[in-house]
Amino acid sequence: MASDKTKPPLTYAGVGINLEKRRATVQRYRDVTKAATRPEVLSGVGPFGGLFALGNKYRDPVLVSSTDGVGTKVKIAALVGRYEGLGHDLVNQSINDALTCGAEPLFFLDYIASADLTPDQKVALVKGIAEACEAASCALLGGETSDMPDVYRPGDFDMAGFVVSVVERDEIIDGSSIVAGDLLFGLPSNGLHTNGYSLARPALGIGTGPADSADDRARLERIEPELGESLADALLKPHTSYVNAMKPTLRQGTAQALRLIKGMSHNTGGGFEENLPRMLPEGLSARVHKDAWPVPPIFPFIQRSGGIEEAEMYRVFNMGLGFVFAVSPDAAGRVQSLVPGALRVGEVSNVTAGGEQVELV
Amino acid sequence: MASDKTKPPLTYAGVGINLEKRRATVQRYRDVTKAATRPEVLSGVGPFGGLFALGNKYRDPVLVSSTDGVGTKVKIAALVGRYEGLGHDLVNQSINDALTCGAEPLFFLDYIASADLTPDQKVALVKGIAEACEAASCALLGGETSDMPDVYRPGDFDMAGFVVSVVERDEIIDGSSIVAGDLLFGLPSNGLHTNGYSLARPALGIGTGPADSADDRARLERIEPELGESLADALLKPHTSYVNAMKPTLRQGTAQALRLIKGMSHNTGGGFEENLPRMLPEGLSARVHKDAWPVPPIFPFIQRSGGIEEAEMYRVFNMGLGFVFAVSPDAAGRVQSLVPGALRVGEVSNVTAGGEQVELV
Repeated sequence: MASDKTKPPLTYAGVGINLEKRRATVQRYRDVTKAATRPEVLSGVGPFGGLFALGNKYRDPVLVSSTDGVGTKVKIAALVGRYEGLGHDLVNQSINDALTCGAEPLFFLDYIASADLTPDQKVALVKGIAEACEAASCALLGGETSDMPDVYRPGDFDMAGFVVSVVERDEIIDGSSIVAGDLLFGLPSNGLHTNGYSLARPALGIGTGPADSADDRARLERIEPELGESLADALLKPHTSYVNAMKPTLRQGTAQALRLIKGMSHNTGGGFEENLPRMLPEGLSARVHKDAWPVPPIFPFIQRSGGIEEAEMYRVFNMGLGFVFAVSPDAAGRVQSLVPGALRVGEVSNVTAGGEQVELV
Repeated sequence: MASDKTKPPLTYAGVGINLEKRRATVQRYRDVTKAATRPEVLSGVGPFGGLFALGNKYRDPVLVSSTDGVGTKVKIAALVGRYEGLGHDLVNQSINDALTCGAEPLFFLDYIASADLTPDQKVALVKGIAEACEAASCALLGGETSDMPDVYRPGDFDMAGFVVSVVERDEIIDGSSIVAGDLLFGLPSNGLHTNGYSLARPALGIGTGPADSADDRARLERIEPELGESLADALLKPHTSYVNAMKPTLRQGTAQALRLIKGMSHNTGGGFEENLPRMLPEGLSARVHKDAWPVPPIFPFIQRSGGIEEAEMYRVFNMGLGFVFAVSPDAAGRVQSLVPGALRVGEVSNVTAGGEQVELV
């Protein structure tokens, strides 16, 4: 090895972190995020923190906050170099989570980390985030893009999102008024959303190696006749937002007895078994009719490719049902007119001897 | 390869994701995070989102929100298997960021992702987060621990944190009242905090390879006489929280003219050059006296090891000065009695011909 004296001085730029370039990228973020704002925002992306003037327009505000990543869906996106949809994934899953207690999104922040994402790739991710925020009337209040050489491999990256939503305290929807005999409605998903990729990847035999595998990329980009599209298209459909679909129901019937929607469940990681019970009072069970909604072809494709048992599929994936909510039978008609896409998918009953909180029939 | 028919069915558990085990770990999170709460919290860690009843005790509340990770400090922690301190890092850097506009922390959420962190390692991270939240009177409102095989390498992981703080709109501190002649005070750091590890690692020749390098571990654990401690100890000191130190100054002098603290800067990534100007009105410059605070020995150690120029050190690291704030000369005495650890480190002047917003003398 040469002596230290002959080496040029070590710099941040020399180890791949260029603060000048970073500033230029931050300026591009500003350009693509301009529309993702609200009148309450006091400062743009950039300073030490984002400022949101909540003010005193709420009677008794409860802030609802949630955080999540998009799981190993990042790996599929990295393989085919498509980033924008992941921004929608990141926002929509978090605002859906907060929606389950009746809260509407106020603002969102993102964290993106990689070894070597290019400015274009980073800007595509942030652009997708901003578009999804704008669609949900949510401000993109801030974010951090972190360069992490030696933690992430070339091409690999990760992202996390954070939402703050708000609901009046006496309008919180928590499932506590659900009784046996209530009906379950559901809204369809367009695919895996952001869950189950760590099972889907080995099942399909893709995305378990480096992010630049040409074999994996070819496999993902090829049209699969059974799907009518490529695996990349099927696997990268962005997580559906249920905020605008459910919004018309939220402020209808503020008093507990009149409440239209009694409880909501976002069908994410852990599938039916883990998510549906979260909205149910003890002693109650959700009976779900599997033939009540169309299962997108990507699910049987994954199941057959991986030789996965059906019960495991429903434990891991949403199977085409992304959001479930409970209403009393006499409210069903009104709910269906307010949420035209809602499908009747089951009913609430008392837990029987078997003790199962979710029964898939 | 054997035919598909001879293979056992593929399961989530079979690919390393065990939902049962995950539930057990979540229960351990609940145990170690119990004390990190506030009366406003309506639900614990666990449901789709965390609920925080802001209520109507604020006149005109502005929410201040910030997100960040801890950079490649995770790599040093992974090498020596020490996790708890990183939790403090994650919380303290974010609450300091929000503090710069006068906001006090309300709640925090964390995101942790890895390929194979053990339950003990995850619980250690979350325990550190909870301790730091508790110390700052901040609720740990929620979090996500994500298993990401094939994105993270064995032993590697990443984490991000999100804070929501609050400040009354007419008490926001934004530096706008700073004038030439104002004094700069600073609070010491205990080391790198969470910035500059991507320069420090190559400078020291550690943590640029796999997370299980025995050579790197030995190098980190050895006592360095010049430091009086091991490199691991010096590099893993948790980010200092300035919230409790600054709190006594925050609600003193609400009217703009009487405000005690005129502007604050958290000295993080980008060092002096990037952070100090954030609090300064245009046309003003911060003159900082480098001999006004003790530089911890880890900084000259890194500088010499990497052959790094002095100017680059101040562009990348905090160099022992973690937080800087501006006050008018006639408030100096009062500030020093309210913040006993504050050191006078410089003054504000008009930008001169050179145009530099920060002058290190």
